[in-house]
Amino acid sequence: MSLNSDSSFTSFGQLLPIKGINLGTAAAGIKKSNHKDLLLITLSKGARVTGVFTQNRFCAAPIIVAKEHILKKHPKFPIRALIINTGNANAGTGEEGITNARSICAELAQLLNCKVSQVLPFSTGVIMEPLPVERIISTLPTVIAHLRPDNWFSAAQTILTTDIVPKAISKKILLGDSTVTITGIAKGSGMIHPNMATMLCYLATDAAISQPLLQEMIHNVADSSFNRITVDGDTSTNDAFILIATGEAGNVEILDKESLEYRELQYAMIEVAVYLAKAIIRDGEGATKFITVKVEGGKDSEECAKIAYAIAHSPLVKTAFFASDPNLGRIIAAIGYAGVVDLDINTLQLYLDDVLVVENGGRAASYSEQKGCRVMSQPEITVRVVLNRGRNSTTVWTCDFSYDYIKINSDYRS
Amino acid sequence: MSLNSDSSFTSFGQLLPIKGINLGTAAAGIKKSNHKDLLLITLSKGARVTGVFTQNRFCAAPIIVAKEHILKKHPKFPIRALIINTGNANAGTGEEGITNARSICAELAQLLNCKVSQVLPFSTGVIMEPLPVERIISTLPTVIAHLRPDNWFSAAQTILTTDIVPKAISKKILLGDSTVTITGIAKGSGMIHPNMATMLCYLATDAAISQPLLQEMIHNVADSSFNRITVDGDTSTNDAFILIATGEAGNVEILDKESLEYRELQYAMIEVAVYLAKAIIRDGEGATKFITVKVEGGKDSEECAKIAYAIAHSPLVKTAFFASDPNLGRIIAAIGYAGVVDLDINTLQLYLDDVLVVENGGRAASYSEQKGCRVMSQPEITVRVVLNRGRNSTTVWTCDFSYDYIKINSDYRS
Repeated sequence: MSLNSDSSFTSFGQLLPIKGINLGTAAAGIKKSNHKDLLLITLSKGARVTGVFTQNRFCAAPIIVAKEHILKKHPKFPIRALIINTGNANAGTGEEGITNARSICAELAQLLNCKVSQVLPFSTGVIMEPLPVERIISTLPTVIAHLRPDNWFSAAQTILTTDIVPKAISKKILLGDSTVTITGIAKGSGMIHPNMATMLCYLATDAAISQPLLQEMIHNVADSSFNRITVDGDTSTNDAFILIATGEAGNVEILDKESLEYRELQYAMIEVAVYLAKAIIRDGEGATKFITVKVEGGKDSEECAKIAYAIAHSPLVKTAFFASDPNLGRIIAAIGYAGVVDLDINTLQLYLDDVLVVENGGRAASYSEQKGCRVMSQPEITVRVVLNRGRNSTTVWTCDFSYDYIKINSDYRS
Repeated sequence: MSLNSDSSFTSFGQLLPIKGINLGTAAAGIKKSNHKDLLLITLSKGARVTGVFTQNRFCAAPIIVAKEHILKKHPKFPIRALIINTGNANAGTGEEGITNARSICAELAQLLNCKVSQVLPFSTGVIMEPLPVERIISTLPTVIAHLRPDNWFSAAQTILTTDIVPKAISKKILLGDSTVTITGIAKGSGMIHPNMATMLCYLATDAAISQPLLQEMIHNVADSSFNRITVDGDTSTNDAFILIATGEAGNVEILDKESLEYRELQYAMIEVAVYLAKAIIRDGEGATKFITVKVEGGKDSEECAKIAYAIAHSPLVKTAFFASDPNLGRIIAAIGYAGVVDLDINTLQLYLDDVLVVENGGRAASYSEQKGCRVMSQPEITVRVVLNRGRNSTTVWTCDFSYDYIKINSDYRS
C-alpha cells in the first residue's frame, strides 16, 4: 500500500476486507515477466454494482461487454464476479476481441455456477494485440482456488501495468450504529486524462445502499476525483471505475440522498477516491512533481476547466516544472490560448503557491526570480489563477514531464 | 538556407532579393550569446502589407502595436519598416511592454523620417522578462547602416531562437510577361500549433496586387500552411505572418481574384509557405521524424481536424514514433478520444504509409508487425485515417517527441 502523503487523510495501516467480497490472483502468462496478471473478484448475492466507463470511441471489447452486462442485469441475477487481466488491453481487436471477452465470462460463469451476464470482464495493457484467451481460461481454476477476503494488496499489485507503486486504501466510518468499511484499489499512470483514462478503480463498501443512489454516488465521486487528474491528455480505451456495495455492514439501507448517511458515505467515498486519484498522479509516468492547478473566480466551471487543462496539458509548462525553472511565461501563454475568447488578461492574477506572479497583464511588482525559484524547487506546487469575473472554480491535479516519461513510453512494448 | 527535401519543390540555390526591400541585421545584446538579434526590414513607398496574428489572449505587446498600425494605416502613410528582435518576447509585460514597443517604433520612425504608425514591431524569445529597450534603440543606427537588398539569409539567421536551421526560400514565376519573385523567411520550433504559434514568417513579393486581394490571399496561404503544423500544441503569444507586395515587378496590378494571375501568385505563395511550414516541423524541438497526418472521408473538415490533431498532439503517439515502435493502439486510442461522438470505429481504416493497419474495428488481417516496423523506422511517415462517411479531408504536419524535446525545454532559459 502506498503511504498516504496527504495530510487530510488518516493513515489506515492496512487494507481491510469487505464482507461479501473475495479476491484471487494468479500469473496466467499474459505478461512476459511471469508476474501476477489475473485478478478475480467475487461478490455475495446481495451486492450492488455500478460503473462509469471510458468515453473513447475505440472502447475496448471488455468494456463493451461489461457495460452490456451492467445495463441488462436482472434484479434476480446481480453481478457476481469481476475478472481483470493486465498485459493486454483487448482493445482494437474487433469482433474477435468481443468474442474473447464473452468466452472468458462464459467459462467463469460455468465455474462459479452463475449466468454469463453476471460476470464483468476488464483488461488493461497493450492495445491491438490479440488476447491470449486460452491462457486466461486455463488459469481461472487457479484464481478461484486462491479466493480470499484479505487479498486486496495482492489485487492492487496484480492490476498494475507501467505503474510502479500499488495504489490502495481502506477507511472505516460510522453510519448510525453500524461500522462501515470502504476499500479501494486503482491502477494507471500513463494515458491519464479526465473521463476515465487508462485507469481501473474498484471501490467497495459493505454499506447497504439502494441501486439508484449507488449510481448517483458514482458520478459525484468520479467528478471529484478521477475526472480531475491528467498526466498526458491521452484518454484510454479501457478505463473503468466500479463501485460495489455488498450491503453486509448491518446499516439501515440508505434510500434517501438527502439523508445524513448518504452524505457521510459519499463524503468518505470521495476521500478515498481522491486519495487514489492523487496516488495515480504521484506515480505518473516519469513524474517528479505533483502539481495542483486551481482556477478560481470564473464565470462558469467550463472556462475554469479550459484554463486549468490548458496549463496541465502544456508540454512546455510541464517541462519547466521538471526543470524547476520559473519560466512563468509558459503558464500565461497557456492561459492565453485556453480558448476563453473574452478573457481580460489585465484583471487576472496568477499565483505560484503564495507568490503573486502576474497582475495587470504583466509580472507583479512584488515578484522576484528568487521567490519563483523557491516554489518551483518544491516537490508539490500549486498554480492558482484568479479570474475575478465570477464565483466558479475548478481544480485539476497533474505532474511534470521528464526524460523518464519519454523513456517509459519509448520502451513500453519492448 | 535549409535544403529543400520535398520533391514538389525545385531547389532555388540562393535567396533572391525583392525589389523595394532592404534588410539590416545587428547584435543588440538582447541574447546573452552576442549573436545577431535585431532585424530591420524597410519597404519602398508603394509596398502593400498585411498580416495574421496569434489568437493567444496573452498577446504580446509588439503584436498589439503591430495590429493597431496595420489596421489604422492611412493609404497615404503605408507601412515602411518592420523591426524584429529575438531573445525577448516582450509578452506578459503589461503596460510597460506596450510603452517599450511604441518607443522603439517612435525612435525608428524618426531615424527613417516616417510616422510611428508606419513601423511594425515584432519580438520573439523568453516571455515575461522586461525588454532591454535601450539596447535595441541604441542599435537602430547600426541596423540602418547595414541595410542591403541581398541580406535575406542573414535575416533568416537573426530571427532564430531555439531553432537550429535558418528557414528561407525563394521562387520565381511568370505573371503575364513579368517575372515575379517571392522570398520568405520563417522562424519557430517550439510552441508550434495552428493559429500562428511561436512563429514569425515574412513573405515578400515584388508583384503588384491590390490591398484587398493581398488580405484575402494571406488567409488562404496561412490555412494551407502555417495553420496545419503542430509540434506540441502550445500556441504562442507572439506569432505573426506578414505578407508584403512591393509592386515593383512591372506586372499589371492584380485586381481580380478570379484572374489567372491571382491564382498563379497564390499557388506559388502557398508552395513557398508550405515549404517554410514543413521546415519549421523538420526543425521542431528535438524532432527526429516528420509525420504527415491525413484524415479523409469525413462528414466535415472539423471532424477530420479533431482526429488529425488528437493524433498529432498525443504524447504517447509521438513517443512511439520516436521509438520507431508500431504501437498502433496509441493511434487508435487517439482517434477514439478525438471527440467525434458518433464515430463508427468498425467502418474506418488506418494506414501507415501504404500499410493497412486497422479495419473492421481491429487489426487488419494483412497487417504484420514486420510491415509496421518497416514504416516506423523511416524518417518520414504518413498516418492516414479513412473515415468513409463523407468527402472532406484535413492534413496536419507534426514531428515526434524525443528526449531532446525535454532537454531543450528544460534548459531553455539557462
